[in-house]
Amino acid sequence: MSHAALRVGICGVGTVGLATLEILRGQSLALTARCGQPLSVTCVGSRREHPDHDYGDARVSRDVMDVARDPEVDVLVELIGGTSVAYDLIKLAIEQGKHVVTANKALIAEHGNELIAMAESAGVQIRFEAAVAGGIPIIKALREAVAANQVSEVAGIINGTGNFILTEMTTKGRAFDDVLSEAQTLGYAEADPTYDIDGTDAAHKLVILASLAFGIPLNIDAPVKHGIQEVTPADLEYAGELGYRVKHLGIARQKDAGIEMRVHPTLIPESKQLANVDGVLNAVMVVGDAVGELVLVGAGAGGAATASSVCADLIDIARNPAGSGPALGVPVAQLTAKPLVPAGDIASEWYVRLTAADQPDVTSKISQILTSCNIGIASLVQKPSSADEGKAPIVLLTQIARESVMTQAIDEICGLVETDPDVAVLRVESFDQ
Amino acid sequence: MSHAALRVGICGVGTVGLATLEILRGQSLALTARCGQPLSVTCVGSRREHPDHDYGDARVSRDVMDVARDPEVDVLVELIGGTSVAYDLIKLAIEQGKHVVTANKALIAEHGNELIAMAESAGVQIRFEAAVAGGIPIIKALREAVAANQVSEVAGIINGTGNFILTEMTTKGRAFDDVLSEAQTLGYAEADPTYDIDGTDAAHKLVILASLAFGIPLNIDAPVKHGIQEVTPADLEYAGELGYRVKHLGIARQKDAGIEMRVHPTLIPESKQLANVDGVLNAVMVVGDAVGELVLVGAGAGGAATASSVCADLIDIARNPAGSGPALGVPVAQLTAKPLVPAGDIASEWYVRLTAADQPDVTSKISQILTSCNIGIASLVQKPSSADEGKAPIVLLTQIARESVMTQAIDEICGLVETDPDVAVLRVESFDQ
Repeated sequence: MSHAALRVGICGVGTVGLATLEILRGQSLALTARCGQPLSVTCVGSRREHPDHDYGDARVSRDVMDVARDPEVDVLVELIGGTSVAYDLIKLAIEQGKHVVTANKALIAEHGNELIAMAESAGVQIRFEAAVAGGIPIIKALREAVAANQVSEVAGIINGTGNFILTEMTTKGRAFDDVLSEAQTLGYAEADPTYDIDGTDAAHKLVILASLAFGIPLNIDAPVKHGIQEVTPADLEYAGELGYRVKHLGIARQKDAGIEMRVHPTLIPESKQLANVDGVLNAVMVVGDAVGELVLVGAGAGGAATASSVCADLIDIARNPAGSGPALGVPVAQLTAKPLVPAGDIASEWYVRLTAADQPDVTSKISQILTSCNIGIASLVQKPSSADEGKAPIVLLTQIARESVMTQAIDEICGLVETDPDVAVLRVESFDQ
Repeated sequence: MSHAALRVGICGVGTVGLATLEILRGQSLALTARCGQPLSVTCVGSRREHPDHDYGDARVSRDVMDVARDPEVDVLVELIGGTSVAYDLIKLAIEQGKHVVTANKALIAEHGNELIAMAESAGVQIRFEAAVAGGIPIIKALREAVAANQVSEVAGIINGTGNFILTEMTTKGRAFDDVLSEAQTLGYAEADPTYDIDGTDAAHKLVILASLAFGIPLNIDAPVKHGIQEVTPADLEYAGELGYRVKHLGIARQKDAGIEMRVHPTLIPESKQLANVDGVLNAVMVVGDAVGELVLVGAGAGGAATASSVCADLIDIARNPAGSGPALGVPVAQLTAKPLVPAGDIASEWYVRLTAADQPDVTSKISQILTSCNIGIASLVQKPSSADEGKAPIVLLTQIARESVMTQAIDEICGLVETDPDVAVLRVESFDQ
């Protein structure tokens, strides 16, 4: 790069785009000192007109593709989101020989293998620190800091919106819908929050983390996926009484049988660090053979924190115009798929909440079924019955069991005439092994 | 670097050196994939003979300076420690056009400005991730991940040995000397543990963190320094009763009046994350204007964790042979000294434990002195008197006060005929601001 500046084109000027522009303008002297050259925004692509935005000297285009074609752009920053326009845009930028910085987890998870391979062939960089866990440098940690380790696990709270909702529901007893609309007002949740709630967003991020951790290709279909909509206020309360907090976790773990990848609401003992990461905070734990457990905690959402990661990528590109190693740790061509553990074979402790007739022999029937399935019971509590129906909630914690076995046991339990079909089944993670 | 491998020379084969050799050998295929070239140990310098060590194909020399002169070495890894031989060795390596990786906090804190400036002139890299907080990538986080932020604070537990000792004393009521000798047996503490105990080691690390955080030259004289030897078992117990844990913290904070730099035992509310980082774990918190609070927790000592960071530096050099930005974030010539807040002007809440005659008017006299010094009292507790002497410990927590004012008040309190000269005065940090 022989120019006197790294010339940046920004596509998408929502919360993160504006925060990125603000950092690049507000910190320009400091950034020049850090990069040895200014980071200049030469072009902004925005499909909508924003008369109140100040883009400085940057050229503005309504067609984001113009940014990818602009000869005065060295790095294209994609902050549009989604997998259609963003995909075409990044492809065009790479073809035009431009580096790419993106915060788009869905796009990297779904099309990353292709796009990164393209970038590697074209000799340009594609960076996506902001795509996972907002301001937390977990991509850099996996790609660079623990690069000498055999990583056996990466796990954490990687959806800020979901964690905000669960935290508010747990600590203030608020209703799901109420908290969700506040999250949208605060700018944490998307206008369409489906992906935050059903686990898709966390699954996308986990796919990226797992690729970096284990050197496997990005595989958007790999994670077993459960969202926070499966958690009721009653479960949060019962979990609390048992000494647990419910968090939505992404877990990618190398086991003898293969790699487990799963996102789901999880009971965590309240003494564990991850149980106490609240609100929009994210936390990611990496376990490596040399480094041991490394945990990073920070803001998982919000414009400024995410823009901090976008700008870190720009600084890295300015400092390393010739590249600084493969985007996924090893070149895409050297990523090697490994067997995945099927959902049914993933073992864990379990939390089960069901409703049954308030009769003394119900618990014994349930215990018998679990025992016949070889599932150990860690605790079983029959709650006081609700006055009107003669039914009572039963809450139980099990020893470690595979999901397929658990499902079979739950089916049998639900087949009892005394039980209701409404059953909550959540995994428990003690992070002991 | 036109060689088919990055050729590594290792000086010093103690715990960290051996762990580094083990990683480079054990992970050689994975490292080649990550770096695009092998990391080959071509030379080992060790002043002592170790007939049981296996150095593979590496040339072995009793004179470490030979490693710096070896034309078949691209990167010299300095794991000798101390500031005499290591200083000469690194200088020679730079003169010989070699990159340097070191775990030597004392050397970087004391001679880093000179050595890094030399390396910048010579166009070679000098890297020291392993010098601070073992396996935690805090250098990379400050230098790269939060490089777009104005950092206002970096604080944490940055001496694993000291934290191990305080944790064991707190949780198991063990005696200082007993825990120290175990720490030495476990390889956490140096043969001469003075620097771990008196705060010097933490001060060295803080000097490095502060330079990266604030863009100031390394200044080994800057930190106010207190060690864990100032903490008695009684203070750990009283702190616990008050809802605090005692941790040895390093704190570098940008205030209006200048930069505060200090290492000292500190009372932290037990609800705070840092209060619950135990054993040889380290934790570092960075506060940036964009990213907010970012906390990294991991192994702060131990051969493998430290070697993980040494190898990460080697990987970075292999991936970025032309360099990847200044070692301290900005070139040494652009570091700018900022005013330091003198020790006496550093304000905080305080914990005070003193012994006084078990008379009803003593607490009132003490309160009067504090009030006359404008120091607010948050709590004051007179403990039961020891049976034999008619004296009783008094434990108090104050509101925020500058050290100079606190010292004056303590002097006056010790001037009372009723008090003993033995007084413990520790800072309290609530991390609220």
